[in-house]
Amino acid sequence: MNTIPLAPAILVLGPPLVFKAYETEFSERFNFLKPWKTSDPLHQFISSHSANVKAIFCSAVSPVTAEIIGSLPELRFVLASSTGVNHIDLGECRRRGIVVANAGSTFSEDVADMAVGLLIDVVRRISASNRLVKARVWSGREEDYPLTRKIGGKRVGIVGLGQIGLHIATRLNAMGCIISYTSRTMKPHVTYPFHPTIQKLVSNSDILIVSCALTDQTYHMIDREVMLVLGKEGVIVNVARGAIINEKELVECLVKGEIGGAGLDVFEHEPKFPEELFRLDNVVLTPHHGAVTEEACRSLYDHVCKNLDAFLLNKPLECEVIDM
Amino acid sequence: MNTIPLAPAILVLGPPLVFKAYETEFSERFNFLKPWKTSDPLHQFISSHSANVKAIFCSAVSPVTAEIIGSLPELRFVLASSTGVNHIDLGECRRRGIVVANAGSTFSEDVADMAVGLLIDVVRRISASNRLVKARVWSGREEDYPLTRKIGGKRVGIVGLGQIGLHIATRLNAMGCIISYTSRTMKPHVTYPFHPTIQKLVSNSDILIVSCALTDQTYHMIDREVMLVLGKEGVIVNVARGAIINEKELVECLVKGEIGGAGLDVFEHEPKFPEELFRLDNVVLTPHHGAVTEEACRSLYDHVCKNLDAFLLNKPLECEVIDM
Repeated sequence: MNTIPLAPAILVLGPPLVFKAYETEFSERFNFLKPWKTSDPLHQFISSHSANVKAIFCSAVSPVTAEIIGSLPELRFVLASSTGVNHIDLGECRRRGIVVANAGSTFSEDVADMAVGLLIDVVRRISASNRLVKARVWSGREEDYPLTRKIGGKRVGIVGLGQIGLHIATRLNAMGCIISYTSRTMKPHVTYPFHPTIQKLVSNSDILIVSCALTDQTYHMIDREVMLVLGKEGVIVNVARGAIINEKELVECLVKGEIGGAGLDVFEHEPKFPEELFRLDNVVLTPHHGAVTEEACRSLYDHVCKNLDAFLLNKPLECEVIDM
Repeated sequence: MNTIPLAPAILVLGPPLVFKAYETEFSERFNFLKPWKTSDPLHQFISSHSANVKAIFCSAVSPVTAEIIGSLPELRFVLASSTGVNHIDLGECRRRGIVVANAGSTFSEDVADMAVGLLIDVVRRISASNRLVKARVWSGREEDYPLTRKIGGKRVGIVGLGQIGLHIATRLNAMGCIISYTSRTMKPHVTYPFHPTIQKLVSNSDILIVSCALTDQTYHMIDREVMLVLGKEGVIVNVARGAIINEKELVECLVKGEIGGAGLDVFEHEPKFPEELFRLDNVVLTPHHGAVTEEACRSLYDHVCKNLDAFLLNKPLECEVIDM
């Protein structure tokens, strides 16, 4: 009698939000291992399944370390539910010939919308006004609320002009902003002015929007020195990764009024927020939710199924992030 | 010895925010009467200056009634600091041959930005998240925050496609929304689909944005019936005038969850807010601040000076709102 070969197992780390939203549908199609459903410590869970794990599907905040990779001899594929892959040890993957793929452009527009929403919110003081109104601070006297600033005409510097950055540029261009950008290399077919360094970009910007990958090169790229050039009226929006900004220095600049405000969807030590910012009305904080829409979730589900199928059938993948 | 003739007096009602911001500059150029600086009741102040008042400069919330107009026999010009002129008795002005002018397109872009900001805020729950985060409600568990909706692909119905409506359309078009509109008449040179009635518009919309003038025809144009067609997922943004929406019915629909959310910069009985909405996170409230930016204020100052000069020199005015 033949035995049915066990389907290759996919270890789920996190789990990603999309996994929870579509768990039933996912589980009908693939053999997932769900460590959060056992009481075993993660390393013990992984050891006990190590022989069968061919792939990992991970959230943006679940580290895929050299240790995890090392304990999975059959691992051939890591699929991230995020655009950023800074939580994956890419060097170790490369060394082992493990393919790494990300969410591609699944939710680029949603993240761009969040960046624009945070920007308008900070500059036009929407959350602040909403809070004051709901706390019954409005007597019809204009003095209760300071004048805000116009969005149009502001010089917006975009840090990282990938899919998300391009969508941000399109949106703010339609609002009359003057766009320029910095990036590892100048983009062909893009007419927005390019600045080779963050220093050049910031000295030509009223507003900085961070939409680049977190790498060794971009870690703490935006520090106190950059922020002091941005200045007292300057605004920073971050929808990429917290650690691209030196958060300690960002907090200091905001508390001292050395920059004008910030809209932050990401933080250096998530899920921890810098609590010093809680009392500042010129700072708007959201919990890493740039990508979290129903539509993005559905589209990510399709993307993940397509790529896991391709991997299991040895077909070409979308969105490989390590060029083998 | 000749006496210097008294400069024609301009009665300031409100006063408009721009008047307070530029009072010194204004007062060097014109002979303003400032009733709020005396202890006299308004009607008494007006009576005592009635012979000399040639013009009124008024805020959006200062009624220019038939009674006020009737007590000023020399009145020839009413200049509003707002786009809307629903607070001015236009019939009486027409009868007396008094010219009425508004702020023109001085802050159309700012109001459009506010509409877009309120829309993103409500749909992507930015103010709500900011509030929860600052109240320390985030443990990294996604369950703390519901999935939101994608802006792109939504059908946005714009009520009134003047300068403000057109700027809103441009912005939301860049975000991938599907725009259509209703208006008194179909606009030439506009490619967005036109619906002749609010009923037709709402049955083709996921989101309604109100940017029309308040008139007898638009008063309570958006009522419970319209809102029920918009439905449980539908969102309303109002940056025009509160009374275009039946506020009592709007509150009822929001409280019962019969529509999905609202972003409101204007209210039917300003400065009163409907307090039932204070506890709803799907409702974002701002205090009639669509136009309140430093840049708009400066630009309005220039506009007001230009038009008062033109009036005093008998030259053509910009932005006459009554076609004589």
